[in-house]
Amino acid sequence: MKQYLKHHEWQIIEEGFDPHLNRISESVFSLGNGRMGQRANFEETYTGDTHQGTYVAGIYYPDKTRVGWWKNGYPEYFAKVLNAPSWIGIGFNFEGQELDLAKAKVEKFERVLDMKQGLLTRSFTATLADGKKVSVQAQRFCSMADGEVGAIRYALTPINFSGTVKIKLSVDADVVNKDSNYDEKFWDRVYEESQMGWAVVNAQTKKTQFQVCTAMEYKIELGGERIGGKVFTNNREKYADNVVELSLVGGKELVVYKYAVVLSSENHPKDKLVKHCLGKVGEVCKKGFAALLHDHAAKWEHTWKDCDVAIEGDIAAQQGIRFNIFQLMQTYTGEDARLNIGPKGFTGEKYGGSTYWDTEAYCLPFYLSTTNPDVARNLLIYRYKHLPLAIANAKKLGFTDGAAFYPFVTMNGEECHNEWEITFEEIHRTSAMAYAMRDYIEYTEDKNYWVDYGLEVLIGISRFWAQRVNWSSDKNKYVILGVTGPNEYENNVNNNWYTNYLGAWTLRFTCQAIDFVKKNSPEKYQALVTQLNFNENSETKKWKDISDKMYYPEDKSRGVYLQQDGFLDKELMAANDLRPEDRPLNQKWSWDRILRSCFIKQADVLQCMYLFEDDFTLDQIKRNFDFYEPMTVHESSLSPCVHVILASKLGYQEKAYEMYLRTSRLDLDDYNNDTEDGCHITSMAGTWMSVVKGFGGMRVRKNQLHFSPFIPDQWKSYSFRVEFRGRVLKVKVTKTKTEVVLESGEPLEIVLDGKPLSL
Amino acid sequence: MKQYLKHHEWQIIEEGFDPHLNRISESVFSLGNGRMGQRANFEETYTGDTHQGTYVAGIYYPDKTRVGWWKNGYPEYFAKVLNAPSWIGIGFNFEGQELDLAKAKVEKFERVLDMKQGLLTRSFTATLADGKKVSVQAQRFCSMADGEVGAIRYALTPINFSGTVKIKLSVDADVVNKDSNYDEKFWDRVYEESQMGWAVVNAQTKKTQFQVCTAMEYKIELGGERIGGKVFTNNREKYADNVVELSLVGGKELVVYKYAVVLSSENHPKDKLVKHCLGKVGEVCKKGFAALLHDHAAKWEHTWKDCDVAIEGDIAAQQGIRFNIFQLMQTYTGEDARLNIGPKGFTGEKYGGSTYWDTEAYCLPFYLSTTNPDVARNLLIYRYKHLPLAIANAKKLGFTDGAAFYPFVTMNGEECHNEWEITFEEIHRTSAMAYAMRDYIEYTEDKNYWVDYGLEVLIGISRFWAQRVNWSSDKNKYVILGVTGPNEYENNVNNNWYTNYLGAWTLRFTCQAIDFVKKNSPEKYQALVTQLNFNENSETKKWKDISDKMYYPEDKSRGVYLQQDGFLDKELMAANDLRPEDRPLNQKWSWDRILRSCFIKQADVLQCMYLFEDDFTLDQIKRNFDFYEPMTVHESSLSPCVHVILASKLGYQEKAYEMYLRTSRLDLDDYNNDTEDGCHITSMAGTWMSVVKGFGGMRVRKNQLHFSPFIPDQWKSYSFRVEFRGRVLKVKVTKTKTEVVLESGEPLEIVLDGKPLSL
Repeated sequence: MKQYLKHHEWQIIEEGFDPHLNRISESVFSLGNGRMGQRANFEETYTGDTHQGTYVAGIYYPDKTRVGWWKNGYPEYFAKVLNAPSWIGIGFNFEGQELDLAKAKVEKFERVLDMKQGLLTRSFTATLADGKKVSVQAQRFCSMADGEVGAIRYALTPINFSGTVKIKLSVDADVVNKDSNYDEKFWDRVYEESQMGWAVVNAQTKKTQFQVCTAMEYKIELGGERIGGKVFTNNREKYADNVVELSLVGGKELVVYKYAVVLSSENHPKDKLVKHCLGKVGEVCKKGFAALLHDHAAKWEHTWKDCDVAIEGDIAAQQGIRFNIFQLMQTYTGEDARLNIGPKGFTGEKYGGSTYWDTEAYCLPFYLSTTNPDVARNLLIYRYKHLPLAIANAKKLGFTDGAAFYPFVTMNGEECHNEWEITFEEIHRTSAMAYAMRDYIEYTEDKNYWVDYGLEVLIGISRFWAQRVNWSSDKNKYVILGVTGPNEYENNVNNNWYTNYLGAWTLRFTCQAIDFVKKNSPEKYQALVTQLNFNENSETKKWKDISDKMYYPEDKSRGVYLQQDGFLDKELMAANDLRPEDRPLNQKWSWDRILRSCFIKQADVLQCMYLFEDDFTLDQIKRNFDFYEPMTVHESSLSPCVHVILASKLGYQEKAYEMYLRTSRLDLDDYNNDTEDGCHITSMAGTWMSVVKGFGGMRVRKNQLHFSPFIPDQWKSYSFRVEFRGRVLKVKVTKTKTEVVLESGEPLEIVLDGKPLSL
Repeated sequence: MKQYLKHHEWQIIEEGFDPHLNRISESVFSLGNGRMGQRANFEETYTGDTHQGTYVAGIYYPDKTRVGWWKNGYPEYFAKVLNAPSWIGIGFNFEGQELDLAKAKVEKFERVLDMKQGLLTRSFTATLADGKKVSVQAQRFCSMADGEVGAIRYALTPINFSGTVKIKLSVDADVVNKDSNYDEKFWDRVYEESQMGWAVVNAQTKKTQFQVCTAMEYKIELGGERIGGKVFTNNREKYADNVVELSLVGGKELVVYKYAVVLSSENHPKDKLVKHCLGKVGEVCKKGFAALLHDHAAKWEHTWKDCDVAIEGDIAAQQGIRFNIFQLMQTYTGEDARLNIGPKGFTGEKYGGSTYWDTEAYCLPFYLSTTNPDVARNLLIYRYKHLPLAIANAKKLGFTDGAAFYPFVTMNGEECHNEWEITFEEIHRTSAMAYAMRDYIEYTEDKNYWVDYGLEVLIGISRFWAQRVNWSSDKNKYVILGVTGPNEYENNVNNNWYTNYLGAWTLRFTCQAIDFVKKNSPEKYQALVTQLNFNENSETKKWKDISDKMYYPEDKSRGVYLQQDGFLDKELMAANDLRPEDRPLNQKWSWDRILRSCFIKQADVLQCMYLFEDDFTLDQIKRNFDFYEPMTVHESSLSPCVHVILASKLGYQEKAYEMYLRTSRLDLDDYNNDTEDGCHITSMAGTWMSVVKGFGGMRVRKNQLHFSPFIPDQWKSYSFRVEFRGRVLKVKVTKTKTEVVLESGEPLEIVLDGKPLSL
């Protein structure tokens, strides 16, 4: 844990330059706009420790898998987010002296991320080895108004000298992935050109053959006047630049505006990429920094209007929640159903940047409540598009007849993970797709989603479950053997209660969807029956039988469900009774010891109670929470939010707040010492859920929005906005009361603290 | 499965040259002498498909581990048998035409391995591209009389031409391991020299810094006359040779004798290696091929006298069992307690060539009965020497107080495996060391082994078990969670019956050893108590408590023990009901499907019944055999022998013979299509056990040797010899009777078919 960032309501502020913290700051101060992203690397040369990262959404590389012991069924490759061509480079050379903060004396260093308008500002003065002193203010943003545009304003003032400067403005596709399995470079050259005033590089990924074309144009002002200078153009394989030579005058500010356009072959024909890119970068440059920033900031203003959470009386918490919302919003905008939310977003390359069940289980509720329903719908459609590959995945593992098994990690729909206990056995994720559908439909009432896309997916998933269960003649029940539940500190267990529950629920939910589609769109239903070779009678009969006769492990004496068969054979103890030197377990204990211990990585039985809260009595939830919570070590960033929500419901307000603190500033305070690899984007949605569903008690029940808020002792007030079926509601909770205001849309009846309230 | 080798009682014969079978033959025709080994690669240049393999016992390299997802506790490296400097090379070049069977027309090709005297003979005629025709007979052996010596007699006759030949006689340490994880070469140069008549190369392994020095000398005869020729000497890094140029005359036989000496720094001081090596190769060369072969063959004659199994009426079975005995005997001679039996012996490099529990569970009984007791004792001492590293291994995984956890795979005592479900969880192997001790003591009555070495090991192992179990307050019993049993088609199961049984037995056996040592060598006992900080009172009390209250899963209604908790939740079916296209499962099914199926890779419950046969009634064994046998797919070469032995005991003679067939010609017929990687050395001991303990019913019970033989319908008679406490017995079984003859040693009372018999 490190706590070096200044607290501020709307800004993230780093004061002073500590090279050891640089990778962390590079993650925290990352920028993105849903289409592209950039770690907070320096524009100028930096020879110190850095993790360079430029990313373009949807562009990946299937890196050959590295595996110790191959198991039948493993995928051949692991699709990775690629480090893409860098467009930020602006180097300065003063008569042989390079501006390089690793070699200069750095003073007044400050990095400020203004979350309100999505602008990163870095300022410092640097004294070079030969005594030359410059002061710099560099600003940049990735435009939310146009996802293909990035802009930089780099202002430099020579403090104590005049003389010649060479400014190198580059576009560089000769980049590497830190996590490349075989130290391979992933980009091939296609084209590079540099002419006076601009440079362009078009590069193509190996194997996947995506092309990304990156162009830059620039303008330079000296003392407020446009200046040309002497321009040298260079290009070599995968690289192009302009070097501008001009004379500086002591005390006179030099401002470099660099504009970048990044186009991908996912959105433009390959043969037009260079042309489009050069045309667009010209327009962008003409429009200029101020106008671009204006459009960008306006977009952020609009975004914040719907999604802000304001906390009074706790500036650290305020900063934390806004940072989480900011990162989520710049990672995924929901405009493109081919995209999704990688665990590190655009802030790093770890975990391959691919899609996990995090999206459905944690991110969907956030986007459902903070943006228009199309965004959440696009997240569902993303998986719909992957259905054929989910069916192929199931087939590879021996399932038949169109059973669909969604991958644990994916970029294009194919499975990328290769750990049998996860890849093959953490099967609950395939039903996260079904649950997301329920979540979406409950929230939006858009049952037509079943007709358009949903039922087809559900039939595939249900076919999977129907084959994955087996009849135990010993138990006289259906059982599900050999699984890993959400708690990945148990592998290959039998009858994980969460998995069994979710599987049986999916079968019932699918039948419900069938009834709806059959009734409301009989032609579509008939088309599906034919297309899927669906035998409603026999298949649903089997599904009902399974869901009726599913086995659920439980301990009747304690009144708790058992995480899995045999759970009570373990030595039960509380995580608090562990020696501090044993934590975190995943760094201190060998895997077998973790597995046979009772300790729980992340909510498992409790995850189910969270998802299906209304299926259980308060007493049931309490008993299970009281049993499992003390054994939970929360060594996944996805864990605490579920505990916040349940603890809030149970009135365990202190516990709820304690858990909340573990999530809200996870990256800002580098809680797990891993922020240097990137921020925990998907778990940030959990922080939002902690406030809105946890403290705010927001639920949708039977078509009605419910709230039952409490306020942590440490806070004066908090407020949040949610979108719900065309309305925007603002909820403000103080020590004494809760205000719910309908800010826009038709009148609505909600339930506040169990009582109806008309808005 | 391929069946291209001719059946013969004492020989393995390949007729005709099929390059596609070459790698298989290279394995099958391998030679070794316990100290060094050589695959049946050609002496002359061969540019076709080949797996070159020269091996020196005890010389290994710790290759950096390759792993997909690192788990805490994994070892950093995997120790590998090294491909060692090659000493066999004899190249022939006829005025620019290289003798290379990949490019010549090959006729009358024959490879014969004479197992009686351990001699490999290869003969052929080859027509080169330019029409030159030669006939060749090449013979070689690795001397059993002197483990550091190899010799070749290479006779070549030019059929249709006269002219110059260049003969290249090389020693080459520039070799690679096929299974190198990172394509690294494992040898560094130390020294190379070539002088007229000899060449030497000394090379050192990276990291481990073993040195292997290889020298060769040669003599050449033409038409029976010694000839010198024109000699060119060459050396470069890690390589040295002589090229001899001489004139051939059509029809006149050229004979090249090449002698090699291979010394390792394990047996010679490094600074004397080259000197010793050159000195010795000179002597060997002087002694000559015929005399060396005589000593070698005499050693084999002596070996066969004690261990041969003769089968009348089934030549394929006869060849199979002799091949297995031959390979075992040339892999391990028992003279050096630092050595052990790698799964592939000297026939390949797969599985790293390290030591597995195969040694204790399968090989020990073979060596116990066929050689003097020192050999088996050395196998035990090998593990005794590794005790400190077994304790370190346990400590790394969180065990304390001198608990010893023997590695699953090892070369020098350190764990080399990195699959958590095996490395950390297949814990039964640590008690294989205890069982081997029992086996040894029962057979030899050498209880002093406990005093000298055994008890120290047993206390370490028992301390491991005492910490590995935990008390289940649910079951009111001790349980063992998270294990993999011998059946590796189940991972991370709870209460594997075999493991629980073996663990509890180990604790009792250790107490028995304590009583013996305390009584018979009180000083040694006191010394151990001090050295090990052993608290007899509290520790043995705990051990007795665990062994009294161990939980054993069972199905009382069926009268069977359960392989593990939850076994009856599986869909039970017979392996015979699987579709042929699903076999073998490990090549056809994904891992999860294998895991949740009922199918058993190798004997598990039945392994325990085999090891502790006298603890169970015949009815119990029958019930368990009838239950588990049909579900067993025998996808481990170690599986069938256990089934043979139990089936024999139960009178299932047909089943016993059917199972026997799966093991006896496994490599000769390339049953699993993997002999090209090397032969299945350790499972060969299982074949011997199948005959002697299975068909012959040999047991040691209460200090007496028992036999209760039957003869398979397909055989006329079979006979075997066993050593037992200073006697040699010959047992011959025919259709009508069993003869047991005491060939040497004191009179003995044995039990034949349940009745006492004095010999």
